[in-house]
Amino acid sequence: MTPLNPSFAEDVARSFTQQPIMNLIGARLSLVEPGVVEITLPYRADLTQQHGYLHAGIITTVADSACGYAAFTLMPAGSNVLSVEFKVNLLRPAQGKEFVARAEVIKPGRTLSVVRADVFTIRDDERELVATMQGTMICVGKKE
Amino acid sequence: MTPLNPSFAEDVARSFTQQPIMNLIGARLSLVEPGVVEITLPYRADLTQQHGYLHAGIITTVADSACGYAAFTLMPAGSNVLSVEFKVNLLRPAQGKEFVARAEVIKPGRTLSVVRADVFTIRDDERELVATMQGTMICVGKKE
Amino acid sequence: MTPLNPSFAEDVARSFTQQPIMNLIGARLSLVEPGVVEITLPYRADLTQQHGYLHAGIITTVADSACGYAAFTLMPAGSNVLSVEFKVNLLRPAQGKEFVARAEVIKPGRTLSVVRADVFTIRDDERELVATMQGTMICVGKKE
Amino acid sequence: MTPLNPSFAEDVARSFTQQPIMNLIGARLSLVEPGVVEITLPYRADLTQQHGYLHAGIITTVADSACGYAAFTLMPAGSNVLSVEFKVNLLRPAQGKEFVARAEVIKPGRTLSVVRADVFTIRDDERELVATMQGTMICVGKKE
Repeated sequence: MTPLNPSFAEDVARSFTQQPIMNLIGARLSLVEPGVVEITLPYRADLTQQHGYLHAGIITTVADSACGYAAFTLMPAGSNVLSVEFKVNLLRPAQGKEFVARAEVIKPGRTLSVVRADVFTIRDDERELVATMQGTMICVGKKE
Repeated sequence: MTPLNPSFAEDVARSFTQQPIMNLIGARLSLVEPGVVEITLPYRADLTQQHGYLHAGIITTVADSACGYAAFTLMPAGSNVLSVEFKVNLLRPAQGKEFVARAEVIKPGRTLSVVRADVFTIRDDERELVATMQGTMICVGKKE
Repeated sequence: MTPLNPSFAEDVARSFTQQPIMNLIGARLSLVEPGVVEITLPYRADLTQQHGYLHAGIITTVADSACGYAAFTLMPAGSNVLSVEFKVNLLRPAQGKEFVARAEVIKPGRTLSVVRADVFTIRDDERELVATMQGTMICVGKKE
Repeated sequence: MTPLNPSFAEDVARSFTQQPIMNLIGARLSLVEPGVVEITLPYRADLTQQHGYLHAGIITTVADSACGYAAFTLMPAGSNVLSVEFKVNLLRPAQGKEFVARAEVIKPGRTLSVVRADVFTIRDDERELVATMQGTMICVGKKE
């Protein structure tokens, strides 16, 4: 998948710093390639639900941003991306020191792009899948 | 829908205070009835994405907790609830001073319950739908 | 919800007759109103899975067509509708003499519309919910 | 993924012949391995929607059966499998002479299994992805 926007990586990085929620939860952008984005989130006790696992909504937060930016890497310069919908299956309790959401574009499109994200926990140097997302992102024109 | 657990309301309230993420984002439990739970979230700039709208993952966080607790109100005393999966459609930009996630159980079950949540923004005293979730919650036995 | 296309009902009816699959499975259009469409499907043994219940894919077939046409009733004359995605929860075994898929538009849009469909079985004159769909439909221009 | 049921392949094949809907639409089982099942469906004009593409519900029918049987290959002998929910993204118009739904178990479980299915069309000897499903299957005890 060839990017239409030569400065896609810088544009993703700039947009990411403009998502205050990423700062609040302590997430960082860890990989940006054409059609693929990873976001890394260290475990923090204040991000959890009643059993001490990462809350499903926080898993979704990093997976959704990873999906949006993965789609964005293949959009023309000056585009904006919004989430249309997503579906998440929670596979295992989200325990571990660090989580990585890896999103890959399955089908890019001029208007709609379909993206998948897997969320892994890193335990003993092994990636273990804790959740998977399948979603639709939309390309909208420049916002003034 | 008649609750099997006579102290369902206290149990939801206690569990809610044990979700650190709810405290981090400033969400509060605003309604607990058999099969129905509402969570209210005031707007905060640090919960937003790059356009200043509430991040879809934060909408999902309150919708998912509301769904889980709505299912939990109909479970036997001593149960635990976990999210199996959910699907969210984002309908409008999440702008406004306050958001309410209202979850209702569509189909309670001994093991699996299907729940729907609508997330509204309050604008000029009117509820406007910004997102809707359809999900599956599972009842698991007592955790020690 | 006011229809933009004054002949929406005739257009739905004509398009429905052009869906050969509806004829194969024996489905008929039973209600067409602005934003709401119902399709009725009598039980037939050749539509079932290994336990004699209606196959989930056939439930989906009538729910999806009902959703598409519900969205279509609110689109401009000359539009075409396609399914972008849908999610189905199966709530009970699909047993009964007749099934009704009732779709309602939750959020109409110029490009994307979000639609919900409930599929009921008719047992002893009572409607019992067997499945529910939440999906996205897209309006595309005239096809030659 | 090691099968618990040594006769999983025969059991899938027998159950498949007991799904009358597979016979009605002309689908056949084309691959059965531990955690992986493929179902092949030749194009037929009576399976289409108003534009001559395979109806999304029929794509779902083969994808759902493939997912159910993929989960079933990893269940104990004597189990039954039912669909809990699934989500389908339609990626391209379903045109072509033949379609293959390939399902793979992402996360097997004692009760719930999460399965993904890709539906391809075969055009000029190339597989082109037309739809993708992410769903949950449940293992239920022996039905008498």
